Amino acid sequence: VRRSGQSGTILFYSEASDPSWPTELQKAFPTFAVRTRPEDTDPTDVVAAIVWKYPAGMLQQFANLRLIQVLGAGVDHLWSDPCLPKHVPIARLVDPGLTARMTEYVLLHSLALHRRLPELRSAQCKNTWRYLHPRPPADTCVGIMGLGVLGRSCAAALAGIGFNAIGWSRSRKSNMAVQTYIGAADLDEFKRRADIIVLLLPLTSATENLIDSHFLAGVRDGAALINVGRGALIVENALIAALDAGRLRHAVLDVFRTEPLPAEHAFWSHPKITITPHNSSATNPATALGQIVENIRRATAGEKLLHPVDPLIGY
Amino acid sequence: VRRSGQSGTILFYSEASDPSWPTELQKAFPTFAVRTRPEDTDPTDVVAAIVWKYPAGMLQQFANLRLIQVLGAGVDHLWSDPCLPKHVPIARLVDPGLTARMTEYVLLHSLALHRRLPELRSAQCKNTWRYLHPRPPADTCVGIMGLGVLGRSCAAALAGIGFNAIGWSRSRKSNMAVQTYIGAADLDEFKRRADIIVLLLPLTSATENLIDSHFLAGVRDGAALINVGRGALIVENALIAALDAGRLRHAVLDVFRTEPLPAEHAFWSHPKITITPHNSSATNPATALGQIVENIRRATAGEKLLHPVDPLIGY
Repeated sequence: VRRSGQSGTILFYSEASDPSWPTELQKAFPTFAVRTRPEDTDPTDVVAAIVWKYPAGMLQQFANLRLIQVLGAGVDHLWSDPCLPKHVPIARLVDPGLTARMTEYVLLHSLALHRRLPELRSAQCKNTWRYLHPRPPADTCVGIMGLGVLGRSCAAALAGIGFNAIGWSRSRKSNMAVQTYIGAADLDEFKRRADIIVLLLPLTSATENLIDSHFLAGVRDGAALINVGRGALIVENALIAALDAGRLRHAVLDVFRTEPLPAEHAFWSHPKITITPHNSSATNPATALGQIVENIRRATAGEKLLHPVDPLIGY
Repeated sequence: VRRSGQSGTILFYSEASDPSWPTELQKAFPTFAVRTRPEDTDPTDVVAAIVWKYPAGMLQQFANLRLIQVLGAGVDHLWSDPCLPKHVPIARLVDPGLTARMTEYVLLHSLALHRRLPELRSAQCKNTWRYLHPRPPADTCVGIMGLGVLGRSCAAALAGIGFNAIGWSRSRKSNMAVQTYIGAADLDEFKRRADIIVLLLPLTSATENLIDSHFLAGVRDGAALINVGRGALIVENALIAALDAGRLRHAVLDVFRTEPLPAEHAFWSHPKITITPHNSSATNPATALGQIVENIRRATAGEKLLHPVDPLIGY
């Protein structure tokens, strides 16, 4: 039997998140039962599901669900669930902690590529002193593809440290702090300029496989790639071919079509690929909790959510 | 025969510097002859020597030398020249470009250590997905040893991005933006706090071999080290022992007792050492030229130099 108002069960289901989440949620919702496994709930009692990469079909058993709160910025994994409840409002998080961690990651790897750490590591493996003169960041153009909250924050931080930062977006954005290229018409010019391309696009039918052999044929010679968006933005064989041909000099990959990346995958041992285990960023309870509290209040009151997701456009 | 005033020969002698230096100097001093090899000069005509790691004895042949301008912040290599002319004023550079490149390097490697890139690289070498939750920079204390122009800039940038930055200095400094520990009395407390120790000390008789087994016994368990000061600050065997024992988790080394680092040196293949070829920073003609122009003017006019070096304290 579902209780109304400030009670019920909150299901928190997430891989690879901050371990303090369940405790923090329980503290924030003392009158709710916070559970981390569906089998520990009375399904009719679950009013809110806070999820990250849950098993397909998990949500359909909750007849009184009023909120699907995704524990991050990307919501594409929802669309692979054929049993996603159709009439339950969905929200994603815009978390200052998530934005800050992502910005630090992009700054770190842009600096590492600008300073040619992969090339210096190769030299170290050969006991070779290979002096490379340090250049100012202004000599390197970093192009951010995807100018949502994360992309804008990265662009501002890169420009702040002196990089020549530019952006590309599918549709026109207002108040951009950096030079912005818009849509398919501007993509070639964007690619001609960027020494480092940072993928921060949402995964939708319009962006899937965007980074294919045609795209990679048009990048600057020796450009580098950082993918912190989604694995399926990239055609894997095209990426490997571009690295092997020297068209791309290095790729830093945090996201993959299959995660964890299978042990036998060719990416692991490729000398021009740096792999991080989808840990570029993560939602932080301290900074995100307030938004979840507010969305649970709004959902139970039938109000419009913060950062609602539109299933028709996919984000 | 030495010409007076705005003429004479300027000797520019430097390893591993921006290749545009001689051209830029000649443009700035059209009435002087700019030479890059002592054998291409009339020694009595040389009025200013702009140097970085010159062969010992090179300067004593220049009887009319009025300025030894070091092309960087560290001047310790001068003291290894037993024939350094005694009565010629010496200046070092405080170059905004040099400071900026150093700051970027320290930011890059502090972020890399904070985000555990060496550990993730080891995991990648084993085709292993090892998720490490991204922590905010505030969870990591970066301790800068040496609070001159470079150390202060690094401390400010680290604090600016959210690191818990602290500093240590031999003598009290004013107007420090970060918490500062002073002298031998504070060193143990400083070491107990720093997760990452950045060496930006000048090399003097007081700092040589400072990072020995005693020092390393007192650092935080699993601390990391970044050396952008001088190689001789560190006792090499003590460093390797601390890494092998796990007391230090990683060392990023840009400077070495012998440079280039000999091919047979144990540092090259140590799994917990990242080597860069003394390219953390370099003097930039665009930002440093004005200071050199001014010092040549002052030297020929007999005025006090910008950033004079005191041979008695060694920097």
